[in-house]
Amino acid sequence: MFQPPRGTRDFLPEEMFKRNWAIDKIRKVYEIYGFEPLGTPAFESWELFKIKSGEDVINQIYYFKDKADRELGLRFEWTASLARVISSHRELTMPFKRYAIGPVWRYENPSEKRYREFWQCDADTIGVSDPIADAEILAAAVSCLKELSFEDFIIKLNDRRILEFLIEQAGFPQNNLLEIIRTIDKLDKIGIESVTTELLKYYDNIESIVDLLNLLSLKGKPEKILVTLKNAISKNEKGLKGYNSLEKIYEYSKIFDIDSYLTIDLSLARGLDYYTGPVFEIFAKEYQEYGSIAGGGRYDEIIGLFGGDPTPATGIALGFERIISILDLKGIFNDIKLGTDVLVISINENVQDYAIEILQDIRKNGISSIIDLLSRNIRKQLEYASKKNVQKVIIIGEKEIKEKTVTVRDMITGKQKNIKREELIIFLKS
Amino acid sequence: MFQPPRGTRDFLPEEMFKRNWAIDKIRKVYEIYGFEPLGTPAFESWELFKIKSGEDVINQIYYFKDKADRELGLRFEWTASLARVISSHRELTMPFKRYAIGPVWRYENPSEKRYREFWQCDADTIGVSDPIADAEILAAAVSCLKELSFEDFIIKLNDRRILEFLIEQAGFPQNNLLEIIRTIDKLDKIGIESVTTELLKYYDNIESIVDLLNLLSLKGKPEKILVTLKNAISKNEKGLKGYNSLEKIYEYSKIFDIDSYLTIDLSLARGLDYYTGPVFEIFAKEYQEYGSIAGGGRYDEIIGLFGGDPTPATGIALGFERIISILDLKGIFNDIKLGTDVLVISINENVQDYAIEILQDIRKNGISSIIDLLSRNIRKQLEYASKKNVQKVIIIGEKEIKEKTVTVRDMITGKQKNIKREELIIFLKS
Repeated sequence: MFQPPRGTRDFLPEEMFKRNWAIDKIRKVYEIYGFEPLGTPAFESWELFKIKSGEDVINQIYYFKDKADRELGLRFEWTASLARVISSHRELTMPFKRYAIGPVWRYENPSEKRYREFWQCDADTIGVSDPIADAEILAAAVSCLKELSFEDFIIKLNDRRILEFLIEQAGFPQNNLLEIIRTIDKLDKIGIESVTTELLKYYDNIESIVDLLNLLSLKGKPEKILVTLKNAISKNEKGLKGYNSLEKIYEYSKIFDIDSYLTIDLSLARGLDYYTGPVFEIFAKEYQEYGSIAGGGRYDEIIGLFGGDPTPATGIALGFERIISILDLKGIFNDIKLGTDVLVISINENVQDYAIEILQDIRKNGISSIIDLLSRNIRKQLEYASKKNVQKVIIIGEKEIKEKTVTVRDMITGKQKNIKREELIIFLKS
Repeated sequence: MFQPPRGTRDFLPEEMFKRNWAIDKIRKVYEIYGFEPLGTPAFESWELFKIKSGEDVINQIYYFKDKADRELGLRFEWTASLARVISSHRELTMPFKRYAIGPVWRYENPSEKRYREFWQCDADTIGVSDPIADAEILAAAVSCLKELSFEDFIIKLNDRRILEFLIEQAGFPQNNLLEIIRTIDKLDKIGIESVTTELLKYYDNIESIVDLLNLLSLKGKPEKILVTLKNAISKNEKGLKGYNSLEKIYEYSKIFDIDSYLTIDLSLARGLDYYTGPVFEIFAKEYQEYGSIAGGGRYDEIIGLFGGDPTPATGIALGFERIISILDLKGIFNDIKLGTDVLVISINENVQDYAIEILQDIRKNGISSIIDLLSRNIRKQLEYASKKNVQKVIIIGEKEIKEKTVTVRDMITGKQKNIKREELIIFLKS
């Protein structure tokens, strides 16, 4: 028996209805916030990925050659394609706010929680360096998550420039900055002792490392952390830039009404090397242990890398698979009616034509409905109705035809009611 | 400057809004007809494609090996994945009606009308051998196309068994049946003379070929063609099966109210070898010269090929790219408002907080809206509004704040109106 390729999955209708429900919500919120859809191919030239993410990324992606030996790769995230479009379509009106929702592919070791095909939902604002764009991105992500029925959040916020300044100030050598940042990023995962051991590889000064990690362990409400931070930074230019952007994001977050979720976390780095300013991660408050459900940051240098004019940019990605898992856990889908609404049952073959007429009438009114295509007996048709989880069954017999009525059975209560045919649509819609 | 890989395209927001508009309509109609979404990975094991379409298909697809040397291929159509799911998930309730909307990839010579990544929108009914399923599939496709604002159609209909019987009856040798059918399928494209020449390669009997092609040239309304056909078929079992299915589809088409579009066309074969019964193609009546915009047929033997129980199946695919091109030609999108609705303008930086409050209020009410993120002057903001093609602009100045009002400018008429803040949402929604 054939299976989907290793690390990939099929989604049967029940799962797909859930996924589509969530995708529709996210898409709608992104559009309400003025993000516009942009479509790019599923694969890109390998060169494009290499420029942004380095040679090594070949190990993590589906890389292949086409029949003309072009080197290609399935997209493993959305940003490279976005940057390609921005750098090659100079006619685009700035600021350009775009969203992209769809699958990405990574050649990673599959596990129950990690798949080789998974969906990401990105929103990015291009052409704005002011932190208002970062704050709005966070507001949009929070609105998406609220629309998906999440209620409370922790938004962890930091600025890469502050992190870099603090590392410099601690006296670390500058040539391993990226590795150092990646190590620090693991603070929450592997703990302070392991991080200290790893950092000693780069800088043999236990005292400075301990001081740095103590400072980086600072986290809390912006109004509190910002004061401490200002003192630590003093007049360093890079540090001040980071400080000012955090302060401005905090100010805007009040107007966007997301300030109560903000936590400044000086250890937050986000591994990817391309971030240049604020970085952020969103957690569902009651499901923190599942990890972040959205993350992003500012990447002002990427578009220039692809030959475009230097263009500021910031963005966020919702982790769709994790979101769906948590929604399932929360039991959200128990209360949402997904799937087909109505099954029309014919008592026997003589009434089938009339039943199809009713069916067509229901469908014309936008109500999803099916008829048994196998001319089975009523018992089997009722079984089919309950397997298909329809809400209502409409039963058509000879009596109903003569009286121009239909019998409607509520599949939840089991109650039946005979109503006039012309009242059926209003009844179903109510 | 980087381009999308050869044969693929980017879709800028204007195009994407159109595509999403059409996808939403198609999805909605499929669901109203009780088709359920099914998700399968973008690539499948090469073996799977080979079983269904033969070794040669490797030339037409993106074939590649993953890092563990697994042979994979990007899906080039939806049916193999569907058949894999059906044959491996025996718990699925039959009949199983599923739809799939998304990209497929073919390694073909790209042209202005042929891309290597394009979308197909399939609906299939599994587990029903009665022609009611074929008729319903046609009704669903017509409803999709009507929802997309097409008005009149030609549905070409034939049955592969009739074609095979007529070829047998003409005395053709049976070993090249598939090639012969593929040649006949080109009748409309290359004309009767070229087809005759090609057929002579398989059967050196010009008289029989001419007789056959004359018979196959028969096309017209079912009520007329069915009579002629019945005489031609007489009592041949295979021919009669084909005849009966056409007759039944015609009968059902009356109840589904699509009978006026039906044309029986005895030359219609559809090249793909796996069809076992009825085959069909839909043309938009006023745009016939652009070719069919939907096509499909019955394939009762595919699921068995993959190790599933022998299971009847029928389906249709909407040619999404061609549909979008014709909708563009028809000017459909001129009358549909796509994109962001509102731009909120701040007269100066002092009023920005109030402007964001208004913006948030509008967004909470589901109206898509943006604010200028670059703090530009009014003239620039109005330019931005017209480039972004918003319908209305809301202007906030100090006077508006003091009076608790907003000024709304209609971007089409240019008219401005000052209204109370609390009346804004109702005004925008009306």
